[in-house]
Amino acid sequence: MNGLDGDLGGDLDVGLLSPVRVGTAAERATGDGAWLRAMLDAEAALVRAQARLGVVPMEAAETIGTVIGKVAEGGGLDPAALALRAREAANPVVALVEDLTAAVAAVDPAAAEYVHRGSTSQDIMDTAAMLVAARTLDLITADLDRTATALAGLAAAHRDTLMPGRTLTQQAVPTTFGLKAAGWLHAVREAVARLRRVRADLPAELGGAAGTLAGYVEYARIAGVPDPEAYPERLIAAFAAEVGLAEPVVPWHVLRIPVADLAGALALTSGVLGKIAVDVQSLSRTEVAEVVEPAAPGRGVSSAMPHKRNPVLATLVRSAAIQVPALAAALGHCLLAEDERPAGAWHAEWQPLRECLRLVGGAAAVTAELAGGLVAFPERMRANLALTGSLTVTERAAAVLAPVLGKAAAKRLLGEASAVAAASGRPVAEVLSELTSVPEGLDLAGLLDPGGYTGAAGALVDRVLRCCPDE
Amino acid sequence: MNGLDGDLGGDLDVGLLSPVRVGTAAERATGDGAWLRAMLDAEAALVRAQARLGVVPMEAAETIGTVIGKVAEGGGLDPAALALRAREAANPVVALVEDLTAAVAAVDPAAAEYVHRGSTSQDIMDTAAMLVAARTLDLITADLDRTATALAGLAAAHRDTLMPGRTLTQQAVPTTFGLKAAGWLHAVREAVARLRRVRADLPAELGGAAGTLAGYVEYARIAGVPDPEAYPERLIAAFAAEVGLAEPVVPWHVLRIPVADLAGALALTSGVLGKIAVDVQSLSRTEVAEVVEPAAPGRGVSSAMPHKRNPVLATLVRSAAIQVPALAAALGHCLLAEDERPAGAWHAEWQPLRECLRLVGGAAAVTAELAGGLVAFPERMRANLALTGSLTVTERAAAVLAPVLGKAAAKRLLGEASAVAAASGRPVAEVLSELTSVPEGLDLAGLLDPGGYTGAAGALVDRVLRCCPDE
Amino acid sequence: MNGLDGDLGGDLDVGLLSPVRVGTAAERATGDGAWLRAMLDAEAALVRAQARLGVVPMEAAETIGTVIGKVAEGGGLDPAALALRAREAANPVVALVEDLTAAVAAVDPAAAEYVHRGSTSQDIMDTAAMLVAARTLDLITADLDRTATALAGLAAAHRDTLMPGRTLTQQAVPTTFGLKAAGWLHAVREAVARLRRVRADLPAELGGAAGTLAGYVEYARIAGVPDPEAYPERLIAAFAAEVGLAEPVVPWHVLRIPVADLAGALALTSGVLGKIAVDVQSLSRTEVAEVVEPAAPGRGVSSAMPHKRNPVLATLVRSAAIQVPALAAALGHCLLAEDERPAGAWHAEWQPLRECLRLVGGAAAVTAELAGGLVAFPERMRANLALTGSLTVTERAAAVLAPVLGKAAAKRLLGEASAVAAASGRPVAEVLSELTSVPEGLDLAGLLDPGGYTGAAGALVDRVLRCCPDE
Amino acid sequence: MNGLDGDLGGDLDVGLLSPVRVGTAAERATGDGAWLRAMLDAEAALVRAQARLGVVPMEAAETIGTVIGKVAEGGGLDPAALALRAREAANPVVALVEDLTAAVAAVDPAAAEYVHRGSTSQDIMDTAAMLVAARTLDLITADLDRTATALAGLAAAHRDTLMPGRTLTQQAVPTTFGLKAAGWLHAVREAVARLRRVRADLPAELGGAAGTLAGYVEYARIAGVPDPEAYPERLIAAFAAEVGLAEPVVPWHVLRIPVADLAGALALTSGVLGKIAVDVQSLSRTEVAEVVEPAAPGRGVSSAMPHKRNPVLATLVRSAAIQVPALAAALGHCLLAEDERPAGAWHAEWQPLRECLRLVGGAAAVTAELAGGLVAFPERMRANLALTGSLTVTERAAAVLAPVLGKAAAKRLLGEASAVAAASGRPVAEVLSELTSVPEGLDLAGLLDPGGYTGAAGALVDRVLRCCPDE
Repeated sequence: MNGLDGDLGGDLDVGLLSPVRVGTAAERATGDGAWLRAMLDAEAALVRAQARLGVVPMEAAETIGTVIGKVAEGGGLDPAALALRAREAANPVVALVEDLTAAVAAVDPAAAEYVHRGSTSQDIMDTAAMLVAARTLDLITADLDRTATALAGLAAAHRDTLMPGRTLTQQAVPTTFGLKAAGWLHAVREAVARLRRVRADLPAELGGAAGTLAGYVEYARIAGVPDPEAYPERLIAAFAAEVGLAEPVVPWHVLRIPVADLAGALALTSGVLGKIAVDVQSLSRTEVAEVVEPAAPGRGVSSAMPHKRNPVLATLVRSAAIQVPALAAALGHCLLAEDERPAGAWHAEWQPLRECLRLVGGAAAVTAELAGGLVAFPERMRANLALTGSLTVTERAAAVLAPVLGKAAAKRLLGEASAVAAASGRPVAEVLSELTSVPEGLDLAGLLDPGGYTGAAGALVDRVLRCCPDE
Repeated sequence: MNGLDGDLGGDLDVGLLSPVRVGTAAERATGDGAWLRAMLDAEAALVRAQARLGVVPMEAAETIGTVIGKVAEGGGLDPAALALRAREAANPVVALVEDLTAAVAAVDPAAAEYVHRGSTSQDIMDTAAMLVAARTLDLITADLDRTATALAGLAAAHRDTLMPGRTLTQQAVPTTFGLKAAGWLHAVREAVARLRRVRADLPAELGGAAGTLAGYVEYARIAGVPDPEAYPERLIAAFAAEVGLAEPVVPWHVLRIPVADLAGALALTSGVLGKIAVDVQSLSRTEVAEVVEPAAPGRGVSSAMPHKRNPVLATLVRSAAIQVPALAAALGHCLLAEDERPAGAWHAEWQPLRECLRLVGGAAAVTAELAGGLVAFPERMRANLALTGSLTVTERAAAVLAPVLGKAAAKRLLGEASAVAAASGRPVAEVLSELTSVPEGLDLAGLLDPGGYTGAAGALVDRVLRCCPDE
Repeated sequence: MNGLDGDLGGDLDVGLLSPVRVGTAAERATGDGAWLRAMLDAEAALVRAQARLGVVPMEAAETIGTVIGKVAEGGGLDPAALALRAREAANPVVALVEDLTAAVAAVDPAAAEYVHRGSTSQDIMDTAAMLVAARTLDLITADLDRTATALAGLAAAHRDTLMPGRTLTQQAVPTTFGLKAAGWLHAVREAVARLRRVRADLPAELGGAAGTLAGYVEYARIAGVPDPEAYPERLIAAFAAEVGLAEPVVPWHVLRIPVADLAGALALTSGVLGKIAVDVQSLSRTEVAEVVEPAAPGRGVSSAMPHKRNPVLATLVRSAAIQVPALAAALGHCLLAEDERPAGAWHAEWQPLRECLRLVGGAAAVTAELAGGLVAFPERMRANLALTGSLTVTERAAAVLAPVLGKAAAKRLLGEASAVAAASGRPVAEVLSELTSVPEGLDLAGLLDPGGYTGAAGALVDRVLRCCPDE
Repeated sequence: MNGLDGDLGGDLDVGLLSPVRVGTAAERATGDGAWLRAMLDAEAALVRAQARLGVVPMEAAETIGTVIGKVAEGGGLDPAALALRAREAANPVVALVEDLTAAVAAVDPAAAEYVHRGSTSQDIMDTAAMLVAARTLDLITADLDRTATALAGLAAAHRDTLMPGRTLTQQAVPTTFGLKAAGWLHAVREAVARLRRVRADLPAELGGAAGTLAGYVEYARIAGVPDPEAYPERLIAAFAAEVGLAEPVVPWHVLRIPVADLAGALALTSGVLGKIAVDVQSLSRTEVAEVVEPAAPGRGVSSAMPHKRNPVLATLVRSAAIQVPALAAALGHCLLAEDERPAGAWHAEWQPLRECLRLVGGAAAVTAELAGGLVAFPERMRANLALTGSLTVTERAAAVLAPVLGKAAAKRLLGEASAVAAASGRPVAEVLSELTSVPEGLDLAGLLDPGGYTGAAGALVDRVLRCCPDE
């Protein structure tokens, strides 16, 4: 079987293999089309900045801007052909500049001389990457904000909803669903804070062929710009302003801190969302059944089993969270960028960066939906707590008995009573009450009521709800 | 600036961010269209296998096969819509089966009952993944074979071409370009051997809803298949034969060894190609200039610097080699697949697996071109060797002097002579000839001729050329 | 607080942070002491091989061997001081050779001339790495064989023990615990097969300063070895035989396939063990409680909660399985070894390789204990299956009803009945029996008995138990 | 050969396999001894905090503190035995608390009751991890500050030292060594800024068995603490103050943002140092020879080749930079911490976190030495620039000729002249001067002097030297 005939071979990526992001705004904001658009935006901003500083005639900049506007609306670029030509230079900017220059020349040959003037591929590609990142981060933080709002609602509503705490898969002392939701909320806010910080720092790139801006300076000299010494800093500032990104201290062609910062913040966000996902899955298990994902027509349906309702939203989020750390590691390796432009480490960044952005973007969108409709079942939580009798509060009993019996003796006593209770299925309070070594007058039933042993859970929920970094 | 208007937003992936694979056969063989085609191939094979065993009417299988053939040629499937619907089930098979069933029903409602009979999404998706992998591995090994042929030619032609060996960036003792090419050749052959082994073992997947084949068995029971006990093994064998993959011992829904084997072999191949790339880059440096990549119109052109010829092929290969180990690590994490189907670890495999396949596929295609046209400059290699006088052969002098002077004394003597030679720019042979501690009668010039000190280089080249695993 | 006073600062690694491997044989076999020992073994084998071929006096080789034996038993090497001196050359061999030469010279100055003759640090370090790997792989495969034996016992004993299959966290159709154990067994055997293959191929390293064996050849020439052309291949063969490793085709200083193969096989093994661990954890959850880890005094005790029994063995194994894929990825990057010895990529291998070996070694030892004492609770498995009434066998009902009602109608009917059953808590068979659309005469109770719907589970267990690769 | 006899087997880690960190302060600050010390520090701080709040008698706290002080100075703990016992609980705290309790009881049995009161292993282990991280980060930032000072010196001294810019391995337009050093300096400062930010945020951990602080609260209730509602927040604050770490908003047992932040900042730092290393290596190549590492007795010596001086410092740094991103990825995976304590994801953090800290610590120490003694050779830089005639400034010529000839024509002309120059070995200015298409009156020699074409290099150096974040 060869199987590669038929028209289906033509679709490289419609999202089939990455349902976590298919159809999301982040997917569109990171597609090849969006990258091309961002490269054109960078070219337009560059010529505008040069025109503002008197190096390029303003009319030429306007002409170029107009042509770029038309091209960006679909007139005249062939993205697939451009991608193919990117192979020759190992990046797509060379071919894009050729086509853009031709498109401008068709309107005004004189203006065409000013396209990409003094520039280098990496100035455009890096700036475009930052634009794509900025636009996608805005989408992500919006979804995280929606998520935070929903989680704050859950935390408040379930401030005192008792449930089993679970450590190393086993029921431990009780906690509340409100505290769990508050923990998620806190983590999501921290992720937002990091993404916002990174977003604000995303820099434009401007360095010219080897990071000295020599080409830009030369054209300024030819144009007779006054105070040429000050020109580079003015151009960097003007370009950053035009393109809407931060102003870099120095060109970062080979100082890839902006990409590493992005990778770090996206990996953290992915992990925070993944944490929510694994918790939802743990609580969704058939035998636990303490929460259920929001229902939707057709969602969670199995092709084989009519009765099942799979936690597909959490599954999608987790699928992203497994991938992102590895992609971020690949980006980390790209920091080892030798010389003034590395032979591979730069080119290796683009696809993993895009993939991180759209996986986290997809996961954020899915989590917003998940958090917005997650249903908790307090009665089931209580029932599960009852499974172990009062075993989960033996810690408390140990604390109360320790001053009377000594710590070690109290621990031993509780251990024995727990074993008897587990073996017989009887409540541990009942077993304890029959033991002569237990001091009289203790309210064993009260002491072993899980509802009385949630510690600071409520106070911690309040603390998280009070505290709103970056909001 | 928002910038997300305009039609450019519609292209998710035309290869713009991954020039190493853009336009290659491997890219097409791993696109969403190719995956969909493979899923349809799996469905067709499944119903044919069931028909052969008497569980499904042969005519129904033929009808389904015919409809699949038409659908696969572009009639009636909307890949983007399917991808979007994949979100609901966290995989695309459910929606595909719906559409396929409808397409068959439009032709013959009775036949539609037999589509995906007894099956589960993962049987189809995993089998499709193996089909995609098999088809892409065939492309990769073909390119590696072309590469090996070219490298064998280089090794033979340059069997005795002297060049500096280099360790930790410094010229060391001499080697030959033939030995370097022979090393590349050996590594490429090893990669091919591993890929062929993995290729031969790629299994079909057949397990049904939870890996027991219960659905398949039930339909066989209903159909009154004789010897139902033997049916599962017969069905597995028939399906594997129909789909052209290996027969699994047990369903591997959650035993992801085939994917891990693939990841391992692809990571190794990627690294082998990356090794060739970093060597070509090291030898291409302006100051070294011992090799140059094959020329092509427009290739290696800089947007800013007319004079440059960048080693873009090696750069593309290296860009892939940086990414693949991380993607393979993500696939390694997916081995932790809990229960009978994991809630995320399976779904996290698809995109990294596709990416590994197409990056290695692209890198193999590029390396075949690189190896096929790589030009070496023997005279430049000799000139570079001369840069250090005969310093690179002091090891040999040490060996010859050691029996006379003792090892430590010989080493000390050479160290001093080397320092004098380096400081004065004079040949080390000349410096040595003036030292009284050097025994008389030694042919210092001959002893310090790099050409006489290539050890077993020639013999090793011959050994590699003689030995042809898997050819 | 500074806190770094006190003697505690002196212990760099006693296993405190890696309980999965602390105290295991694999930990000892991969410690710095074991690496030093392996380096000495490599030096001893090298001089013996040269003596066998007449390049070194046999008595000198014997003297060196004797001194190495004494040194390896603790006489005269200071590992910590050696490690410190390794900093100057970026590897420990230079300092080790100095000390070894001095130790031999103290016994017989003439013999000292033959230590490390013609050699290079990487020949010794790589050979030592392969020795350490070989010794550790032998420990690992022994533990995996023990594990396989235990799992075969579980698979046979529980061939027909009914339990819920679980997909995406939800109960799906039934399976058997025997099939689950058989799947683990199959995967462990596959891991063993890969480790054995890699083990058999682990090569000695012999290349000299730049991979041409020039130093070795020169000494042979000086010693007047007959047929010098054939000497290199004879030396490689003799050295490999002496050191007990495979014979390489060419020096692999910069062709790191042996390390990549190791990394791949270890990552796969780690994932296979991790799969078992996550399954054990899933089944150990308080609410599921279908298996429990083997008990041992003090094991699984919580510092806070007397009642808990944590699945610590599975936890340890999983902790290893999370780390190994990333370490393997680091090793994958090291394939990009430029020139004849890379400036960093080689040096980056040692610690991740050691860590992979000891993590997998620890995980194998722990899994052997886990598998050897894992207890399953069949009655609890049945009780959990009953939680969903007969919902898990609706797939079967769909299959039976489809020929009568049509596939879509059957699926719809079952979906409705399942919803009613879930909402009311009544068995789905009872709900169905009241529906008029259900054909009369069906044995609904039998049809919906999970015990009758395990498909090929038993046959698959038998198949795995029959088939014993590498045993 | 078995080879595992002899005492050498006893040393698990004396740094032999990781020369980048052997003997550094960071190695000692991250050793098992330092971790144990930090755990004891956490226990001491916990009981002091409880005593300050009236829950524990002050004398008991003092006794415990005194005993801890003695134990930490080496009296009575057996780290290796503790590590072995860590296996039973999957963490070392349980065993440590047992031993500490016994040591206190030997002095004052009543005080022993207050050891680890209300606490849980993870509170101690996480707090200890943050203490270890804090102490190591202080060492790292100190070394980075030393590095920055040295780099600032290089940038100032070589502000106008001309050298070839290099992109994709080829000489591009000129740059200055000062700008390269300024870029390194900027990156190091950014790394310091991120490490300082992370350092300031490293939180104490306090949550009790399941993150509710229930045990702590219970003991406060028993002790009759006034205003028990406010107690948890007061205890968190007091503990954080005592231990010298930041106060967490909520317990972060399963919200692993502090670890992810650490991983991100360490990966970035590792990459920044790795960037310096690959640049130094590129410039150290025998054929380039523009810089040399600081000399030291014995450093960079080859075991085989007396003449070589290897760039070992850069090699060590690069070896760390290859490993850290993968380790950080492993830590990223640990964010997926299910429930109130994960069964493996927590335990998988310790060793990778330690390894990241000590690799970056080692790399920082080595880089400080490297930067402090790096020697640049301006005359060699000029000579290398001359290798390409004036080819590297054709960009400038293109800019000057474009207004006269048109951009495309100018580019074509320069391309042809470059080709002639490259083929003939003649200066491009000379070739151009003979072409009739070149406008008369141009100062071709001046135009093509690399020294006149460094753009904003000087200004950028000044800008970086002016701007001192976090200093």
